Amino acid sequence: MMIATQLDHQRSREVRPQTRLRPAVLGAAGYAGQELVRILSGHPKVEAPVLLSRQEDSSDATPQTPRPLGWDTLKEEGVDLLFLATPHDVSRRLVPQALELGLRVIDLSGAWRLRHAANRSVYQFEDEGTVSEKLAERAIYGLPELHRAEIETADLVANPGCYATSIILALAPLLRAECVDIEHGIISDSKSGVSGAGKALSKRTHFMSVADNCSAYSLFNHRHVGEIAEQLAIESTNLTFTPHLLPIPRGILSTIYVRLNRKMTAAAVDGCFRDFYAGEPWVRVLTPGTLPEIHSSLQTNYCDIGFGVADDGRRLVMVSCLDNLLKGAAGQAVQNMNAMYGWDEKEGLA
Amino acid sequence: MMIATQLDHQRSREVRPQTRLRPAVLGAAGYAGQELVRILSGHPKVEAPVLLSRQEDSSDATPQTPRPLGWDTLKEEGVDLLFLATPHDVSRRLVPQALELGLRVIDLSGAWRLRHAANRSVYQFEDEGTVSEKLAERAIYGLPELHRAEIETADLVANPGCYATSIILALAPLLRAECVDIEHGIISDSKSGVSGAGKALSKRTHFMSVADNCSAYSLFNHRHVGEIAEQLAIESTNLTFTPHLLPIPRGILSTIYVRLNRKMTAAAVDGCFRDFYAGEPWVRVLTPGTLPEIHSSLQTNYCDIGFGVADDGRRLVMVSCLDNLLKGAAGQAVQNMNAMYGWDEKEGLA
Amino acid sequence: MMIATQLDHQRSREVRPQTRLRPAVLGAAGYAGQELVRILSGHPKVEAPVLLSRQEDSSDATPQTPRPLGWDTLKEEGVDLLFLATPHDVSRRLVPQALELGLRVIDLSGAWRLRHAANRSVYQFEDEGTVSEKLAERAIYGLPELHRAEIETADLVANPGCYATSIILALAPLLRAECVDIEHGIISDSKSGVSGAGKALSKRTHFMSVADNCSAYSLFNHRHVGEIAEQLAIESTNLTFTPHLLPIPRGILSTIYVRLNRKMTAAAVDGCFRDFYAGEPWVRVLTPGTLPEIHSSLQTNYCDIGFGVADDGRRLVMVSCLDNLLKGAAGQAVQNMNAMYGWDEKEGLA
Amino acid sequence: MMIATQLDHQRSREVRPQTRLRPAVLGAAGYAGQELVRILSGHPKVEAPVLLSRQEDSSDATPQTPRPLGWDTLKEEGVDLLFLATPHDVSRRLVPQALELGLRVIDLSGAWRLRHAANRSVYQFEDEGTVSEKLAERAIYGLPELHRAEIETADLVANPGCYATSIILALAPLLRAECVDIEHGIISDSKSGVSGAGKALSKRTHFMSVADNCSAYSLFNHRHVGEIAEQLAIESTNLTFTPHLLPIPRGILSTIYVRLNRKMTAAAVDGCFRDFYAGEPWVRVLTPGTLPEIHSSLQTNYCDIGFGVADDGRRLVMVSCLDNLLKGAAGQAVQNMNAMYGWDEKEGLA
Repeated sequence: MMIATQLDHQRSREVRPQTRLRPAVLGAAGYAGQELVRILSGHPKVEAPVLLSRQEDSSDATPQTPRPLGWDTLKEEGVDLLFLATPHDVSRRLVPQALELGLRVIDLSGAWRLRHAANRSVYQFEDEGTVSEKLAERAIYGLPELHRAEIETADLVANPGCYATSIILALAPLLRAECVDIEHGIISDSKSGVSGAGKALSKRTHFMSVADNCSAYSLFNHRHVGEIAEQLAIESTNLTFTPHLLPIPRGILSTIYVRLNRKMTAAAVDGCFRDFYAGEPWVRVLTPGTLPEIHSSLQTNYCDIGFGVADDGRRLVMVSCLDNLLKGAAGQAVQNMNAMYGWDEKEGLA
Repeated sequence: MMIATQLDHQRSREVRPQTRLRPAVLGAAGYAGQELVRILSGHPKVEAPVLLSRQEDSSDATPQTPRPLGWDTLKEEGVDLLFLATPHDVSRRLVPQALELGLRVIDLSGAWRLRHAANRSVYQFEDEGTVSEKLAERAIYGLPELHRAEIETADLVANPGCYATSIILALAPLLRAECVDIEHGIISDSKSGVSGAGKALSKRTHFMSVADNCSAYSLFNHRHVGEIAEQLAIESTNLTFTPHLLPIPRGILSTIYVRLNRKMTAAAVDGCFRDFYAGEPWVRVLTPGTLPEIHSSLQTNYCDIGFGVADDGRRLVMVSCLDNLLKGAAGQAVQNMNAMYGWDEKEGLA
Repeated sequence: MMIATQLDHQRSREVRPQTRLRPAVLGAAGYAGQELVRILSGHPKVEAPVLLSRQEDSSDATPQTPRPLGWDTLKEEGVDLLFLATPHDVSRRLVPQALELGLRVIDLSGAWRLRHAANRSVYQFEDEGTVSEKLAERAIYGLPELHRAEIETADLVANPGCYATSIILALAPLLRAECVDIEHGIISDSKSGVSGAGKALSKRTHFMSVADNCSAYSLFNHRHVGEIAEQLAIESTNLTFTPHLLPIPRGILSTIYVRLNRKMTAAAVDGCFRDFYAGEPWVRVLTPGTLPEIHSSLQTNYCDIGFGVADDGRRLVMVSCLDNLLKGAAGQAVQNMNAMYGWDEKEGLA
Repeated sequence: MMIATQLDHQRSREVRPQTRLRPAVLGAAGYAGQELVRILSGHPKVEAPVLLSRQEDSSDATPQTPRPLGWDTLKEEGVDLLFLATPHDVSRRLVPQALELGLRVIDLSGAWRLRHAANRSVYQFEDEGTVSEKLAERAIYGLPELHRAEIETADLVANPGCYATSIILALAPLLRAECVDIEHGIISDSKSGVSGAGKALSKRTHFMSVADNCSAYSLFNHRHVGEIAEQLAIESTNLTFTPHLLPIPRGILSTIYVRLNRKMTAAAVDGCFRDFYAGEPWVRVLTPGTLPEIHSSLQTNYCDIGFGVADDGRRLVMVSCLDNLLKGAAGQAVQNMNAMYGWDEKEGLA
């Protein structure tokens, strides 16, 4: 068993610690975009970001009025890095142009997260073809805990999904240590706050639909399954993922069920986690017997992980929590930026 | 594989349709007790219930001031049925006295739900012994969908736990049809509103701890596991149950994961549910592909069940919802009363 | 000072106790419409209501599929009473047709609540003219506590606004007793749950806008001001009304500030309330010193009123609570129906 | 009419810009104390604060374990400033000892906010006497927008109440400009999140009591009335203040009603606010016609103020919002610290 490490892509850059950066943000009006602009605005290595909009978004309120996207002026303004907090289709269309110009890109959408065309079919991209295929291979999955070295030199970073981050970070240590009975099946029962559903108006996100309620959705049918499976090098059919909507603004809690392929003590599981995440700035492994809750990581960039082992030593339940707008989106994007420019990954996020 | 049917206990009563009943309620100040009194007060076959209190509860507000419990006057008042909405230990102490007097009892606590002494150890009852053992065998588990015939003639009905009801009702049809790979393990990831934690003050139920939060608790360690296992005739170790606290006042949603021991279509699973629950007044099976949510059954006595089958035909996810104070407590208690007195089980609950 | 009693309109009907009624409901898909259908379906004097839809609504889910509105068949079906839970403009257009057919109408919209054309200008009705003027005069404001006699014989009842009900019921007793310094100004600071804003999707009712928030709106500019002023026979400028949106699904709490025109004790104020509401089934006056809260009247048809008097005996604060979908809409509509057909006003609402 | 400026107290200190400070915090386990420690820990001019506990608190969790309070070691450790986030009585007892030692004190409790003994009676302090009287006169009310100069040199700063801050900041500009008809009476209808009620367990703060609810409390009887009246130099009887509990964790919204003593346009009112708050770092006056909401100032140290004027030019409604744990408590305390040590008042709070 091997966790994908994507070492084989063409390195386009050297690691270059840089002192000062001016990023641009397209899509600053959405929840993740707003958080991103807020973080960048307080980041000590970053100048005020250039806010861009596509024509159809320009009416929406942001701290400063964004100006319509124009490629030519970006480079003149000294912009080297473009954040996309746009729908998948928009990212698919714009990324080739941005790379052509020599910009580095961190894309918060799902457009470039999947290397295998079969997994991409759930997105129904209109532009599948040779060019896209090459770009998809060139894109680095922006989870620094798994792909730090490639992120440092990447010019296209695909920022992970929020659910996917919470699940991959919980599962990676034990899978890499080959302790999990993968064929037995892995289950993630995940719960998310409403900001994960985005700003678009829908009956689903009306206050009356959400308050005092909880609901499961996208049974056997969620886009993040392929992403998680690729990153963990398992088959999609080995993962059952059920997302739920919670009556809270933000936060994700994933309760993850695996069968161990040998008897393990809590101490052994704990050791496996601590080895894997030693030195990681944004993953916290809790003392065995304690579990994180949504509150634990809210308003932070942490992914918090706790677990319990059954008396039989074979059944393991992990609980993984993060803030879907931070470690699940904008915070992770900034962590990736920090890695790409040779800075401390905590910079601007503490 | 066999669902426990508890046919072997000594029937103490004949089914006796009765026109008019005066019940007593001990513990009317708690959430379940309040709902119970509310339902009984509108029940067309029932006179205003006699509200009783133990000395230590008497200060708490109820619609009418309860009077201290006194056995002698109860029978004079024509009381035939006693509801206990009391802590386990209190129920253990009082039930033998009530039965001695010839009262029928519906106990909402966990005191008499477990037939196997081993499972009872989690409650740490102080009075385990021969008398208790006999009573535990005489008690009927008050889930009419499984034990209607025995409930009708019972003098001691152990009203099921709220989580347990949501899980047993989802699992019973497929287990009885022997479609589930039990050895593979069954998982219930359950979510509950705060009223399930009772009225006692605790840091856990402080508004600041619950709002904008969600947390798992009692990992591998919840009292309802034994109860569910007994009712489904499976081993406790075949069930992994993780309860979660939701930031809502009431409602339970259980997401239940099983492996089928043969390939099944959604239509086949649906047929299994419909056969099992044909004619049941308080279980609704949803159209395949639709899932209940907390809102579905709130303020009703329904348990709503939906499901999805993976493309591989082997992975089944069920979602089961109910109102923890109604089908999960007081509503089910009244449904049991209806069965015990030969009335329509919908009486007073519609 | 005089509370409007509208005795001078042309009585169109005699009070006729009727044993069995078949009502029709147009607009059953909205929050108030749903509650209305729910109540009517359990009402002992009423047959299953005929659900009607305008073409544009027909897609929306209701317990039974509504059929398109057709006047001709209504009478054949034995329908005598039509509930309108429709937008103002629709009610303005349909009511003349319904009355023409001989139907009695209870309209939950604001279309016919205002007798004075000047107050109606906030609605910008397109059909202002002689016919409408006459209808507006014929309509009875459906607050049984003020207009019971006229409601009994009315053929057009304008069901009051939710905020208006909470405010008028708190103010009427003291105003009628001429204890309030009206010129000093009356203030109602009102707070409402989200269902009051209706089912339409808007940024304002998105979960993310409402949760963990509270906001004031429509400052000096809310449609209910004219309605309250007419009913209390005060000038609109004597009432300052500020509505607020609460992060809860339903319920209204109005905190109302008046200056008394003479020193009064709490006992005197209490006496005034109790005299006014003696025998009223759906208004509860709380013991002096206790205040209702949203929970008090939720899921009931009660308007609960409490108050406090300052030590100076001149400043009075009243708190008035109701469920905006019941006493503030559907419950009040059914109370009006009960009055119109000579039934106990508690019928179907207890 | 004059706003109290407290210029007449004995200045004990010169303004001394200081480069580096080590503060101590007693009471870090409460909500305000936790926020205070969080802010101080990120403050660029401040070393890690010394956390202190009274014996009875020591069990409660804080980021670092506090050590029991001991005066002698504090000065050795170089502590110059002591924050008290303690109950009133504890503050009354400890402040004289702290001042004796030469410490400067910022007290978040209500112990020293009131200059007039009559107003203090609501607190029922046990130690009223000559010493306390002198201390109460020496204490500076820590609202920098009104008392900046005295705060800079104070050794005892009484940090304002949360409600009081929201109300005083809204009213001060118009009162100082003598535009308000004070005798007519001022009304503040205020709404607060649950953290304002503190961490102690009570039925009132149980999730089931708060969720889906809203309630008024302390009618004509809240401790902040005297504090507001003193600061605005009005009589307590000229202010009617009704606090309400909202089902949200944090935030205050005050809706304030005044009668102007002359006709004013919105532009004139706006000018009055802007003159008063020109250059203030932590008060934002909104564009006329727009109103702040709880969300506006959440997680910030801002007090946001908006207003509307009735067509008659005499009725003014102001809406004032702040985060009760920041501008209403810990943030304001840090703002006071910044003023006391000659730093930019935004330091550590942006």
